[in-house]
Amino acid sequence: MEVGICKQDMLQKKKNAVLVDGVILNGPIMDSKAGEKFVEEACKIIMEEVIQKANDVTEKVCEWRAPETLKKILDLEMRDTGESHQKLLQLCQDVIQYSVKTSHPRFFNQLYAGIDYYSLVARFITEALNPSVYTYEVSPVFLLVEETVIKKMIEFIGWEEGDGIFNPGGSVSNMYAMNLARYKFCPEIKEKGLSGLPRLVLFTSEECHYSMKKAASFLGIGTENVYFIKTDERGKMIPEELEKQVQRARKEGSAPFLVCATAGTTVLGAFDPLDEIADICEKHGLWLHVDASWGGSALISRKHCRLLHGIHRADSVAWNPHKMLLAGIQCCALLVKDNSGLLKKCYSAKAAYLFQQDKFYDVSYDTGDKSIQCSRRPDAFKFWLMWKALGTTGLEERVNRALALARYLVEEIKKREGFQLLLEPEYANVCFWYIPPSLRKMEDGPEFWQKLHEVAPIIKERMMKKGSMMLGYQPHRGKVNFFRQVVISPQVSREDMDFLLDEIELLAKDL
Amino acid sequence: MEVGICKQDMLQKKKNAVLVDGVILNGPIMDSKAGEKFVEEACKIIMEEVIQKANDVTEKVCEWRAPETLKKILDLEMRDTGESHQKLLQLCQDVIQYSVKTSHPRFFNQLYAGIDYYSLVARFITEALNPSVYTYEVSPVFLLVEETVIKKMIEFIGWEEGDGIFNPGGSVSNMYAMNLARYKFCPEIKEKGLSGLPRLVLFTSEECHYSMKKAASFLGIGTENVYFIKTDERGKMIPEELEKQVQRARKEGSAPFLVCATAGTTVLGAFDPLDEIADICEKHGLWLHVDASWGGSALISRKHCRLLHGIHRADSVAWNPHKMLLAGIQCCALLVKDNSGLLKKCYSAKAAYLFQQDKFYDVSYDTGDKSIQCSRRPDAFKFWLMWKALGTTGLEERVNRALALARYLVEEIKKREGFQLLLEPEYANVCFWYIPPSLRKMEDGPEFWQKLHEVAPIIKERMMKKGSMMLGYQPHRGKVNFFRQVVISPQVSREDMDFLLDEIELLAKDL
Repeated sequence: MEVGICKQDMLQKKKNAVLVDGVILNGPIMDSKAGEKFVEEACKIIMEEVIQKANDVTEKVCEWRAPETLKKILDLEMRDTGESHQKLLQLCQDVIQYSVKTSHPRFFNQLYAGIDYYSLVARFITEALNPSVYTYEVSPVFLLVEETVIKKMIEFIGWEEGDGIFNPGGSVSNMYAMNLARYKFCPEIKEKGLSGLPRLVLFTSEECHYSMKKAASFLGIGTENVYFIKTDERGKMIPEELEKQVQRARKEGSAPFLVCATAGTTVLGAFDPLDEIADICEKHGLWLHVDASWGGSALISRKHCRLLHGIHRADSVAWNPHKMLLAGIQCCALLVKDNSGLLKKCYSAKAAYLFQQDKFYDVSYDTGDKSIQCSRRPDAFKFWLMWKALGTTGLEERVNRALALARYLVEEIKKREGFQLLLEPEYANVCFWYIPPSLRKMEDGPEFWQKLHEVAPIIKERMMKKGSMMLGYQPHRGKVNFFRQVVISPQVSREDMDFLLDEIELLAKDL
Repeated sequence: MEVGICKQDMLQKKKNAVLVDGVILNGPIMDSKAGEKFVEEACKIIMEEVIQKANDVTEKVCEWRAPETLKKILDLEMRDTGESHQKLLQLCQDVIQYSVKTSHPRFFNQLYAGIDYYSLVARFITEALNPSVYTYEVSPVFLLVEETVIKKMIEFIGWEEGDGIFNPGGSVSNMYAMNLARYKFCPEIKEKGLSGLPRLVLFTSEECHYSMKKAASFLGIGTENVYFIKTDERGKMIPEELEKQVQRARKEGSAPFLVCATAGTTVLGAFDPLDEIADICEKHGLWLHVDASWGGSALISRKHCRLLHGIHRADSVAWNPHKMLLAGIQCCALLVKDNSGLLKKCYSAKAAYLFQQDKFYDVSYDTGDKSIQCSRRPDAFKFWLMWKALGTTGLEERVNRALALARYLVEEIKKREGFQLLLEPEYANVCFWYIPPSLRKMEDGPEFWQKLHEVAPIIKERMMKKGSMMLGYQPHRGKVNFFRQVVISPQVSREDMDFLLDEIELLAKDL
């Protein structure tokens, strides 16, 4: 190590050029003025190309390119030397051009869509501030905001008190809950692990999100120990079947510990009967977790909160405001009824370098040890700013309108030839087949269904290549490929619903 | 459900006012012009208050307020009705004012700091586009970018091929690796779980990150089955001790499956001797994971990559470019040497609604099923744009400069009275005590150490309340509270190092 200080006192009194290991250490190495200018220019592009075009239906939802083609268009390679600002701005343009516009009024492909200007501002603020929410000293504002938002969400669930944590997604929230239920069931597992214990068994419906299997596998419980409960024709868990399975598990000598009900299933948008499920959980002493990642936002609506009747009896709830409420990916809370510090007891590792106990402020505000993460993003903040801007009434209006639009679409589907509903929806998932002209007179039978199965992928390919809209399809529990239309965005109107049906007819007229 | 269509053909030919459930469904309900204006005004505040002040040392690092006071200042409550844009802009101002400026040249509190303008632009783009990287159809650009970045990172590790996934943090990366190693050891655990199996045991150093314990507990392995290996006086794992512990585990009849080495420990910045550890892993058939969350970025530097000598022999590596490389929280990759699809086999749940196999494009680009998450943020993109902008050379310069500055600080500490190094650092963690005037002549003994233990918290309180800088302290493995200075930001210069020492002296002169 060479430390060479070249004294140039004559020229620079204060700023000596200090050289260590061949590196000059005086002054910053970044040109901040040029950097700020770059940010300004890029923000202009973002404003014009993304934000202002967000609800322009004359724009394409996507500019489809196959992977190999897109690789050629984008200059992906990272090289030894950097690119000019001009080249970088062009790259930003290209990235935007070939990305899917999830805020477009005709993006119906996932359980999120649209743009909320307030949430977006909050996200820009946090990206610029770059906080991590583990300790009050580093994230004073964002930790207080998280506490406030969690309290408010708990109010809507109907608990008198509780706890919670924002985390990176509904899947992770479900994992949190599963581990928490396990800890409650047997706290020693934290130290001892599952080895040598009887099989832990949990119950969830056949229609649950796939994260239940991922969680059971990740947590060492095993996917075979997830007992899937039969659902009725609307996709709701059948309580009697749950009762049977719990009894079966007991007879097998395994250890049932958890029921995961779903409020708003991914494909059909079904709500499990929470009140009846809660009775069974109470009877058998099982933790009740409700995966309301998708359906939780209905709690904001006085009209539709009845869909989640009984949720106040749950022990934990996963709820993603980034879905129907448009808080932006990712914004997901796990909420817990317990207020005795269970979350902290279960998750804490007491790292001394971060959670010092001799700090000069009340360290109960250092909530990072409730998390499986160390660095954690301030996701509650975007939901908070949006809520401040719209008020509860504005959020409620979003939910009511989405469900009214779904209702409208359902009635239109019933009127139109060639469209067939899979079932009457309860929520914003409208599932339907489109039967193209050539199949309409075909006899019902395996050949018909096989041919119908091939229709949705073709229509999807055509809409993607045209860029006119995006709509998901899937086969599901013995049913051949059907479309799942999800209505979310407040930019969406009746006209977009009509367009959707017209466009399917247009794209499939020769099929 | 009432569907009432009020025909107003005379006035509006095309746009009928459609009313469903009391909701008017025509046109969007958001005023997008007002929304856009709000975004523009807020961006101006962000530009002026956060970005342009990022490297202004005359600004405070933090405007400290105690939790109860801050609650009163911020209007946290969410109400039924929304607030005006003016009020919201004021709120944004307040949020910024009372947040810690992690980009400030005198923020040395965590393993991240500073601002990178290119990464920031990338983050603004992704917040505006709001993508989720699970399928190519929804995230074509971001999935290709992730693939490219992962390939490049693998090159720097020195593997010929590999796989990987960006995920929400180093802690989660370590969990991924632990589960992957377990799957490799015994694939049946995915379905069967750990019940009835012998105790799985893993090894990591005493100085490892606390996420190892969190992971072992979360994955059902149990914290007691993490065998902590002794380290030498510099905090490096002692290979002979590892060998002993593996043999002890075998004798106990437990099942060793994994060694987690650390490249860049959290407190001391120590690097485990990877090559020797790899020998032991090879001999015993153990998976070698390297937690290089902090130290991984040294791989970019031709001068300092020797710190990770032997890393190419690892089976998996966690590496967070959001730390020393300034990619912005969160930007974390888990990288895996295996290229036979192990990551996918271990994690897939094959959700038919998302990962349809009859899509019209090559579905091998739908990488979402390698993740424990469903929605996932495009974190690779910010690293990519930054890399494009700076080139490998620019990234390398960042690492070299940070380590040279740390070196400079060490030499200054040695020169100054009252400062005492804990140990010669290998990396950018400079750990030291400040012995205030009143303690300098005290005899070494329990009383001295007890008094010294109380010094750092007082200095910390004073610097926070003054807002002049932020620097972490902790007790560690029998050593009383000492400061840990971490040098990262390219905005930081020799002058800031001098300031740091001057300021400590100033704050503690009466102690």
